[in-house]
Amino acid sequence: MRYVEMPVGERRIVEEAYRIFRWHPSELMGKGDDVAVLKLDGGYYVFHIDSLVWSTDVPPGMGFDDAGWKAVTASLSDLAAKGARPLGVLVSGGFEPGWTEENIRDLLRGVSEAVEAYGTYVLGGDTNESADGFLSVFAFGISDAPPPRRGGARPGDYVVVTGELGLTAVAFKILLEGFDAPPDIRDASLRAAFRPVARFDAGYALAPFASAAMDISDGLALSLHQMCELSGVGVKLTSLPIHRYAVRFSEMHGLDVDRLTLYEGGEEYELLFAVPPEMIGEALRAAESSGLSIHVIGRFTEEKELRYVFRGVERVLERVGWEHLKS
Amino acid sequence: MRYVEMPVGERRIVEEAYRIFRWHPSELMGKGDDVAVLKLDGGYYVFHIDSLVWSTDVPPGMGFDDAGWKAVTASLSDLAAKGARPLGVLVSGGFEPGWTEENIRDLLRGVSEAVEAYGTYVLGGDTNESADGFLSVFAFGISDAPPPRRGGARPGDYVVVTGELGLTAVAFKILLEGFDAPPDIRDASLRAAFRPVARFDAGYALAPFASAAMDISDGLALSLHQMCELSGVGVKLTSLPIHRYAVRFSEMHGLDVDRLTLYEGGEEYELLFAVPPEMIGEALRAAESSGLSIHVIGRFTEEKELRYVFRGVERVLERVGWEHLKS
Repeated sequence: MRYVEMPVGERRIVEEAYRIFRWHPSELMGKGDDVAVLKLDGGYYVFHIDSLVWSTDVPPGMGFDDAGWKAVTASLSDLAAKGARPLGVLVSGGFEPGWTEENIRDLLRGVSEAVEAYGTYVLGGDTNESADGFLSVFAFGISDAPPPRRGGARPGDYVVVTGELGLTAVAFKILLEGFDAPPDIRDASLRAAFRPVARFDAGYALAPFASAAMDISDGLALSLHQMCELSGVGVKLTSLPIHRYAVRFSEMHGLDVDRLTLYEGGEEYELLFAVPPEMIGEALRAAESSGLSIHVIGRFTEEKELRYVFRGVERVLERVGWEHLKS
Repeated sequence: MRYVEMPVGERRIVEEAYRIFRWHPSELMGKGDDVAVLKLDGGYYVFHIDSLVWSTDVPPGMGFDDAGWKAVTASLSDLAAKGARPLGVLVSGGFEPGWTEENIRDLLRGVSEAVEAYGTYVLGGDTNESADGFLSVFAFGISDAPPPRRGGARPGDYVVVTGELGLTAVAFKILLEGFDAPPDIRDASLRAAFRPVARFDAGYALAPFASAAMDISDGLALSLHQMCELSGVGVKLTSLPIHRYAVRFSEMHGLDVDRLTLYEGGEEYELLFAVPPEMIGEALRAAESSGLSIHVIGRFTEEKELRYVFRGVERVLERVGWEHLKS
């Protein structure tokens, strides 16, 4: 979860891993991507692993079934962003000694519901005892074409985002900081946090036209920073697709809805694409014919600065968002 | 680790998972196997996931580098048993807040040493914060032929085991129960426990001749029970391949070396094969030409009982061994 201060940051660990590990020489995405891709007989195989950890990723009020669902969604979301069709998942669970059989059954049911909802299958698993529960979900899929990388955005490309943002940020305010909300806002935001959806519909429609793609599970601001850093570009956002409930909630509590949405959300599993100008027409038509709600919110820039315009004022897009381990 | 009593047992969880999950309809090994296999373009793809959890799997005295090595070895061992060539691993780590940067660097180094030793590569990973450290290692590989299942043993097949057993049992006695041992025994057994080796050499040589195959990471007795149950057969062992240090250690402490080796070991990562009589000659020649030390220790039987003969006395082979969660 956010706000956790750690002696060793996630980025430091990842940098060490890049230095120390023997990385696959034929991997196509390169360092810093969310997925690994190998061209094997039959197509481009896309691999991803992700863990949900109870002490840091399961907020109060989240059910075991929701946790199972979310763990699968989080892992498959990275395949969705690349337009890859899922072929299966393997799940390694760490079960706390205090969990009841009902807890575990709910957890397994949540995993299964997600696997079924995304039209894929469980291939295998492994059970462990752990003082801090976890679910590691490995997912793999296939794509006919080389998937877009995280670092492929070019100056002039359009910034395309699926969905409307801010509901998970509202949920975190409610769950972790005790903020009030009327029932409609509360229900919608908790549902967004507890039962997020991996956007395969959007990935299938848009990945073929994208120069870069990723999910925004770390929040839109941090995700854009990551995409810009790897691509060697900047960005200027001219609009923010904010959910009306996030706007209302922010008005109720005197919060800046732009900051709330950009920096305090995350785990929304909406997708972020860079789409070249010569592709944007086709991409928009593909989205429309798939019945998708997508938003063109700005353009990538040669100048390596990240900025956004909100209610007529231009601001710096800070490098702030959801990170597991902070240094 | 052994001896842990848990309200919900590992087998119960696995049974629930079999009931609840949407399993892949084209998976070739069937339920209860250690790996999943899909026939895809290019060959038989073999998948496995396994986690090492600090509170239960890392005994006192084990270094972070050893833990990294062992996590990779444990996952790849299941590929080795099936004779599959590893194509890559993905690693999801849960790092405890109290770990130092040096701890983490050692851990990553151990992972990398193993990956390199087995001639494979890291494809991706994921970092998390966890109150109980863990490393989930997903491994996948490829085989030209359909790999032997766990449940393929037939009456009359020979029981073939690699290596000499008992060193990890000695190590657990030293580490967990404070037993003394002279330096040569202590060093060899701790090395067996901290730096076990996945037997790809044996898997490549013997899997093509095997009707069933698995590693004995749960100990020889429990592994034989699992193979017999899935195969619908029994077994009679006429000899036990016990390491001379386990014999000496048992004599020193007045322990039954057969019971120590069969029931109190585990995590040795030696391999267990069922080899049909018409294949045993070729299998032994293949092992010899690969320079392997293997042992033909008995035969599978029509009668569904498990027995072993040791020092002239026939005994029941109990269903006892290493299990994470015991009910």
